Amino acid sequence: MTAIGIGIVGGGYMGKAHAVAMSAVGAVFDTALRPRLEMVAASTPESAARHARALGFARAAADWRALVEDPAVEAVIVASPQETHRAIAEAALALGKPVLCEKPLADTLENARAMVAAADRAGVANMTGFNYVRTPATQYARQLLAEGAIGRVTWFRCEHAEDFLADPDAPLDWRCRGMANGTLGDLAPHPINAALAFMGPIAEVMAEIERVHETRPGGEVTNDDQLQLMLRFRSGVRGHLFSSRIATGRKMGYAYEIHGSDGAIRFDGEDQNALWLYRREGPEAERGFRRILAGPEHPDYRAFCLGPGHGTGYQDQIIIEARDFLRAIETGEPVFPTFRDGLAVAEVAEAAARSAHSGRWTAVADV
Amino acid sequence: MTAIGIGIVGGGYMGKAHAVAMSAVGAVFDTALRPRLEMVAASTPESAARHARALGFARAAADWRALVEDPAVEAVIVASPQETHRAIAEAALALGKPVLCEKPLADTLENARAMVAAADRAGVANMTGFNYVRTPATQYARQLLAEGAIGRVTWFRCEHAEDFLADPDAPLDWRCRGMANGTLGDLAPHPINAALAFMGPIAEVMAEIERVHETRPGGEVTNDDQLQLMLRFRSGVRGHLFSSRIATGRKMGYAYEIHGSDGAIRFDGEDQNALWLYRREGPEAERGFRRILAGPEHPDYRAFCLGPGHGTGYQDQIIIEARDFLRAIETGEPVFPTFRDGLAVAEVAEAAARSAHSGRWTAVADV
Amino acid sequence: MTAIGIGIVGGGYMGKAHAVAMSAVGAVFDTALRPRLEMVAASTPESAARHARALGFARAAADWRALVEDPAVEAVIVASPQETHRAIAEAALALGKPVLCEKPLADTLENARAMVAAADRAGVANMTGFNYVRTPATQYARQLLAEGAIGRVTWFRCEHAEDFLADPDAPLDWRCRGMANGTLGDLAPHPINAALAFMGPIAEVMAEIERVHETRPGGEVTNDDQLQLMLRFRSGVRGHLFSSRIATGRKMGYAYEIHGSDGAIRFDGEDQNALWLYRREGPEAERGFRRILAGPEHPDYRAFCLGPGHGTGYQDQIIIEARDFLRAIETGEPVFPTFRDGLAVAEVAEAAARSAHSGRWTAVADV
Amino acid sequence: MTAIGIGIVGGGYMGKAHAVAMSAVGAVFDTALRPRLEMVAASTPESAARHARALGFARAAADWRALVEDPAVEAVIVASPQETHRAIAEAALALGKPVLCEKPLADTLENARAMVAAADRAGVANMTGFNYVRTPATQYARQLLAEGAIGRVTWFRCEHAEDFLADPDAPLDWRCRGMANGTLGDLAPHPINAALAFMGPIAEVMAEIERVHETRPGGEVTNDDQLQLMLRFRSGVRGHLFSSRIATGRKMGYAYEIHGSDGAIRFDGEDQNALWLYRREGPEAERGFRRILAGPEHPDYRAFCLGPGHGTGYQDQIIIEARDFLRAIETGEPVFPTFRDGLAVAEVAEAAARSAHSGRWTAVADV
Repeated sequence: MTAIGIGIVGGGYMGKAHAVAMSAVGAVFDTALRPRLEMVAASTPESAARHARALGFARAAADWRALVEDPAVEAVIVASPQETHRAIAEAALALGKPVLCEKPLADTLENARAMVAAADRAGVANMTGFNYVRTPATQYARQLLAEGAIGRVTWFRCEHAEDFLADPDAPLDWRCRGMANGTLGDLAPHPINAALAFMGPIAEVMAEIERVHETRPGGEVTNDDQLQLMLRFRSGVRGHLFSSRIATGRKMGYAYEIHGSDGAIRFDGEDQNALWLYRREGPEAERGFRRILAGPEHPDYRAFCLGPGHGTGYQDQIIIEARDFLRAIETGEPVFPTFRDGLAVAEVAEAAARSAHSGRWTAVADV
Repeated sequence: MTAIGIGIVGGGYMGKAHAVAMSAVGAVFDTALRPRLEMVAASTPESAARHARALGFARAAADWRALVEDPAVEAVIVASPQETHRAIAEAALALGKPVLCEKPLADTLENARAMVAAADRAGVANMTGFNYVRTPATQYARQLLAEGAIGRVTWFRCEHAEDFLADPDAPLDWRCRGMANGTLGDLAPHPINAALAFMGPIAEVMAEIERVHETRPGGEVTNDDQLQLMLRFRSGVRGHLFSSRIATGRKMGYAYEIHGSDGAIRFDGEDQNALWLYRREGPEAERGFRRILAGPEHPDYRAFCLGPGHGTGYQDQIIIEARDFLRAIETGEPVFPTFRDGLAVAEVAEAAARSAHSGRWTAVADV
Repeated sequence: MTAIGIGIVGGGYMGKAHAVAMSAVGAVFDTALRPRLEMVAASTPESAARHARALGFARAAADWRALVEDPAVEAVIVASPQETHRAIAEAALALGKPVLCEKPLADTLENARAMVAAADRAGVANMTGFNYVRTPATQYARQLLAEGAIGRVTWFRCEHAEDFLADPDAPLDWRCRGMANGTLGDLAPHPINAALAFMGPIAEVMAEIERVHETRPGGEVTNDDQLQLMLRFRSGVRGHLFSSRIATGRKMGYAYEIHGSDGAIRFDGEDQNALWLYRREGPEAERGFRRILAGPEHPDYRAFCLGPGHGTGYQDQIIIEARDFLRAIETGEPVFPTFRDGLAVAEVAEAAARSAHSGRWTAVADV
Repeated sequence: MTAIGIGIVGGGYMGKAHAVAMSAVGAVFDTALRPRLEMVAASTPESAARHARALGFARAAADWRALVEDPAVEAVIVASPQETHRAIAEAALALGKPVLCEKPLADTLENARAMVAAADRAGVANMTGFNYVRTPATQYARQLLAEGAIGRVTWFRCEHAEDFLADPDAPLDWRCRGMANGTLGDLAPHPINAALAFMGPIAEVMAEIERVHETRPGGEVTNDDQLQLMLRFRSGVRGHLFSSRIATGRKMGYAYEIHGSDGAIRFDGEDQNALWLYRREGPEAERGFRRILAGPEHPDYRAFCLGPGHGTGYQDQIIIEARDFLRAIETGEPVFPTFRDGLAVAEVAEAAARSAHSGRWTAVADV
């Protein structure tokens, strides 16, 4: 059991989630590396100090460079705006420090590529923060698919839909400006990552990207509200992806359904402790989708509770992510999704943007 | 209360459904016109006689022409294979007899157009048998939409997915041959009709149509297993349509979800007595999709039962359809979906076929 | 194929349901006996004539005696108020005419016993109208239980809860007067019948019966709003039964859950086309309640539709009941629930009333 | 921000849950008191050392007395077997140390009473660990009830059913011996506590307590497998409580439903992030149970996540509990459920045991 000093850039929504995760992960998973909340950086000395006090960090920094360069900070978590990801990650990697970077990996494809190059040069643990693939139910779904439980896959549909901007009268704010903050930049990476995790590489996409509410109180919206992609996976399977921030009524609409020749799988993030499985076997009269409740038999559940169906939540996904990051540091083995996996998501997003522009099927390999 | 002699061409699945409906509709709805099961036609004298006896028709015919021309047959229901629809409908309409024709209206676009022309010339009641829009829940959903209950619509997704050919080893049969029997010809017309019913005309489609299982025991499959369409409605709203006959686990996957600026609606035919409604109003803490059970407050439910939630089923949809057909005959007012509405579905299907071929967005007006 | 003249006493809610069922049952099930709607009786000549016209009967009668004695009426359906059941049934049975009597069998235990005696003397088909046990899903559940699919049963819970009197300000009407119209008389017989159908005889009950809203606009309520029973089956299994007419939000709350050593079954009438089955078998990780949609593999479904999941409804339950009644007439074999089965329900209800009065466990055999 | 040294007696299932909670609670809730994992006690030096290392405690003790008396241990969490609760709690309270004791409060009513007396004498924070009332959804349900959202309550049903001993061939172990480990001792306290939390004091109970599987491989079972209680609340409302450890298929069956004159509430722990609410208001056609997803508008959710529907889990309940315990220590204000509240649960359980023995309604006040 070895201590490791953690520095987190950003003390907001995701910075807090990672701080809590790093506080709890040792006791939850009895990890070999034990995180020590060493330093948090924020945009001002005041906010940094406030975050440090609230979240339990030993020290605060108003400049992320101070954090990255601090010798007691042995691993860096990047939870700051997307435009800052590249610079922070490159600086940390250049010092040989492992980096867990929040999704999306970067604000532009170019920056994402630079980050992968930096990670390759550094040769240390690097990871992109796609937490939703880490629920026990979704890990189990991936396992079922890999085992061939539903036979040859024939269809893959996924979505990430929320409604935080459904009200057309919600005032303009930072989320309405900049492609990186639109649906393609902010929400769609989650289902794109799911598509890649479940189905492997995407060959081509055909996309529509929509700015539904063109103006809001305060001015013009300059990024997208929703999008859809028809997908052709390299394996030949077809699928569909939808993402929206104006899907009224949807709160955590990270959902997928997968059809196979021998069965089917369904999941909805609004009931994240259940996985629905259909097997085309046994008497026809007894067939039906079964609602499997996550439990100690499923990946990573047992560390949280010995009773099945007792449930894990959003924060627990981040704790699992923290365990994976620590393990990658400890073992030197890459853990999905690495920066390279984060780049793969960015490439699909770029292909989608081009397809929507041209109205044509677009090969991901061409971006 | 006047009697009306009904002739049904075809005594199979749908022929029986219409016969039962015509037996029950008078008592259910206290209709002004009271159907008399006059004659059923089938492909052989033996099968026609068997159907007549089983279903309670007065007489049988081995030739649909005899049925159409019989003076006691005052209205004709066409429930025979799609290739036969045009000839039967034209013959009946030429004699001034109202026609209810099963979906899809015809096997080809040309034939569908000819049928509409014949109906226009005849000026009598004509109707296409899209039963699924007739559940009380879906009628209510259309009413909610029309009243603006969910505000400005921003997204429309629908599907019709079943799994009757999910088993790759299911032997080749008539369903695997002929475009009219594939998913585009047989299942997709239902959700296309729903899309038109809810959202009005479709301007353009971008389609993918797939033959997933290319061969089956017995030979080569020559039609499609599943398809997806990206939709651009003339109103500007975007949407998606999926249809499949290999959607393992889906039994009655006629489903839709509609997002609006003020709310959302969801429906799944596997729970046809429930409509899910979300309203973006009231305290945020109390918002959620509510499961509304069909009851006497909803369209056409009361005739079946005075207790809410007691449920209607598939056969009841056909009874409602029968009532609508009788009413169209009685009043001379067209009732949705007419032949012209059935043609509109065929035009979207044709545009989809062309789009899938070209890989381009295709305007429905161009077909 | 033989015609049989049907007379229905009562043209209201249930009278109509039976008339529709008798109109449709021949075509649905290709029955050997084919019903002819011969006569309907109601309380006045006007209402009888109106019902006859609306429902399609050949003739009307203002006196049930005329109906019962009419030679063209060969079988009688009793759908009039409970106080009238005995006299009508006795008269019909005395003439050797089969009787289908709506539930509950009678207004008092004494009358129920007299009706059973009359049926025994007559030796003709007799049946009590508990329609809810006839959904394909519930028939299938009974079959699963009989086959031992869930092993040794360890718990049985059922309820019938609706909310038609949930509003405390709903005015006093006939439903608020007379024990036969209270929850014990009107709703509870359904779950009691279910308990007996699934589990066999009940040895003892411990009951609470409650008049929650003692007065309503218009006066004093004199019967019960809700009740609960702890059950001891003769087999040793324990259970619970709840019934209410003030269960706010419940529309068709006919529900049960059955635990067994090897599995469990759940059903809710608000989703009557689904049965939930859990089997304690296979890998723990894959276990879950599966939602089985009623389909052609399940009892009596195929006659309504060849597609699974397409659904049957309330009216279809009555059609199945009609088929069973006709079959009992034709074959001379009794069909569950006979008058004797209806009496068994009345005996449990009586034991419940006594238990609630004494506050003690009460043996059903003692009533 | 002040540190507080925490000692936990027991490093098993619940000991770990509390250790994780105390690690995370500061960062989650920005608590005024910041826990320091000071010492864990277990039955042997080895296991204590192992727990300390795994869970992150500074020190280990093989004797709970050493822990309780250690000056650096400023608050004690009792997560050891029920027989040990009293002695540990009394020792800690005698030293003026706050105590959070796992449920049930004690193994016997006498011991529970002694613990309340000790807490009264000490005048420091004391709490019983009923975590399930702390989900945001259930806290919100209590709030709705208190606000009168569903009007006058007319029915309360609750259960806690799991299936960990459903297999009759599961071998005999400690759970099968001793009343404190049976359903009445171990599971039923949760729904009893819920009943008291939602509805206030229980006046009388009528109980059945069952040993369904009397022997298991390894010998005789000496405690109960399942039980049911009819409840009469002091307010006059009636209800029902069920608890079982052999409820095949149920994994986290902590569930309740509450009927009121103006609405209804439903909850099931197998979907702990949803609360179902029905309001008898607005147009009848639009009424239905709505599924409200827990979100930042609901109690204690916001600390875990800013996105609604993203979910909390079992471990988060314990974190909320930890926050409440720290707050009680800090403010001196008692927090539900105190030891006294834990005793109230024990009194209902005792009344249930007596009722099951006598077969009579039993007043809780009489135990």
